[in-house]
Amino acid sequence: MAWHITLLTLFPDMFPGFLGQSLAGKALARGDWSYTAINIRDFAQDVHKTVDDTPYGGGAGMVMRADVIERALLSVPQPGKKIYLSPRGRVLTQDIVRELVATPTLTMLCGRYEGVDQRVLDAHHFEEISVGDYVLSGGEPAAMILMDACIRLLPGVMGNAATPDEESFSSGLLEYPHYTRPPEWVSAEGTSYPVPDILKTGDHAKIAAWRRAQSEALTAVRRPDLMTKK
Amino acid sequence: MAWHITLLTLFPDMFPGFLGQSLAGKALARGDWSYTAINIRDFAQDVHKTVDDTPYGGGAGMVMRADVIERALLSVPQPGKKIYLSPRGRVLTQDIVRELVATPTLTMLCGRYEGVDQRVLDAHHFEEISVGDYVLSGGEPAAMILMDACIRLLPGVMGNAATPDEESFSSGLLEYPHYTRPPEWVSAEGTSYPVPDILKTGDHAKIAAWRRAQSEALTAVRRPDLMTKK
Repeated sequence: MAWHITLLTLFPDMFPGFLGQSLAGKALARGDWSYTAINIRDFAQDVHKTVDDTPYGGGAGMVMRADVIERALLSVPQPGKKIYLSPRGRVLTQDIVRELVATPTLTMLCGRYEGVDQRVLDAHHFEEISVGDYVLSGGEPAAMILMDACIRLLPGVMGNAATPDEESFSSGLLEYPHYTRPPEWVSAEGTSYPVPDILKTGDHAKIAAWRRAQSEALTAVRRPDLMTKK
Repeated sequence: MAWHITLLTLFPDMFPGFLGQSLAGKALARGDWSYTAINIRDFAQDVHKTVDDTPYGGGAGMVMRADVIERALLSVPQPGKKIYLSPRGRVLTQDIVRELVATPTLTMLCGRYEGVDQRVLDAHHFEEISVGDYVLSGGEPAAMILMDACIRLLPGVMGNAATPDEESFSSGLLEYPHYTRPPEWVSAEGTSYPVPDILKTGDHAKIAAWRRAQSEALTAVRRPDLMTKK
């Protein structure tokens, strides 16, 4: 079964966006994944199509109404696992990506303004997921990032099946540096940058050990938090 | 001066994508920010327009060439601060977003395949930034997220100037729950969900204390790492 995502959003035209191009776009055309973008505004019931209102207790911004969102959600025949993209959520990691790509049907609620009424999250058991410790304009960019991370792991999407596992985070370490031709590159400033000799020896065991050492050294400097998690 | 981003990419048509809609799109139309997307492939010099090659030392995937990327970079009249989006980079936070939105000119290199030749990053002092501990299809989705987080903080972009500072991470805590009308919401299942009484009292000091307590309790449960950072 193909991976299917329902998006509850005020901006359905944002999708598929960049997910309609490159590898994700080809996979969409092949039917490896599909999506439905539902406009929450279509479920407003007043003449002005109001989806939000001022927060109880005061404060800046508007809050999206529980009743309107629930009507949009109930229009989905098979919502599957329900996710609300929010900076308050569980922080996305590659392990969570693998978990979500193994979940065939997902519904992602994209908030705007100050967020959504807490009661609809409680009543429908949305899991909150955050793509990082920063604030975005809305849930749509976060949903697209999450979908992008998942889609590349769907069977058949990456041309070379060996690639996904070799990358950062699969090993728990940052990736070693890469080099390709030319073997001796002279920058525009005139400095010469050779490829490290070890990579040209053809000695696979030594190269693997060098790469591992580079990964460990880089991780220790840049992300000591990842070293302690291992 | 408007905020200007140069993107070095193999997929210039991905931009502006969702950044052309909603608040960011209106800000783009007003000239609050602008971008130039440069196709790295235009700087390949062979008849096949080759931008990548196999990695020295072996392994899956292809590596983008230093010489081609450098030519693309040197075509930019004012590159400003140079950023390479990569899972190996400094992890993006709201503090880094504020730092970047205060930098008027940025060039973002978007890698594809296994990544880019390390030597062009070294020679041109790219700062590596990661949007999170997960692997994306390329640097373009990461660049768009980073731009989205920055653009909403540009002067005049948010309708209500008070909003950005009140949100998650400005306080170092996760945001308290929001409620709006109706005051008593009955879900489709028939459960009644009232708005917490305190939010209807009009007592601003008590409401602020309640919200703070909610934020602290939520942060302690979901993100104890944020509590210890304070």
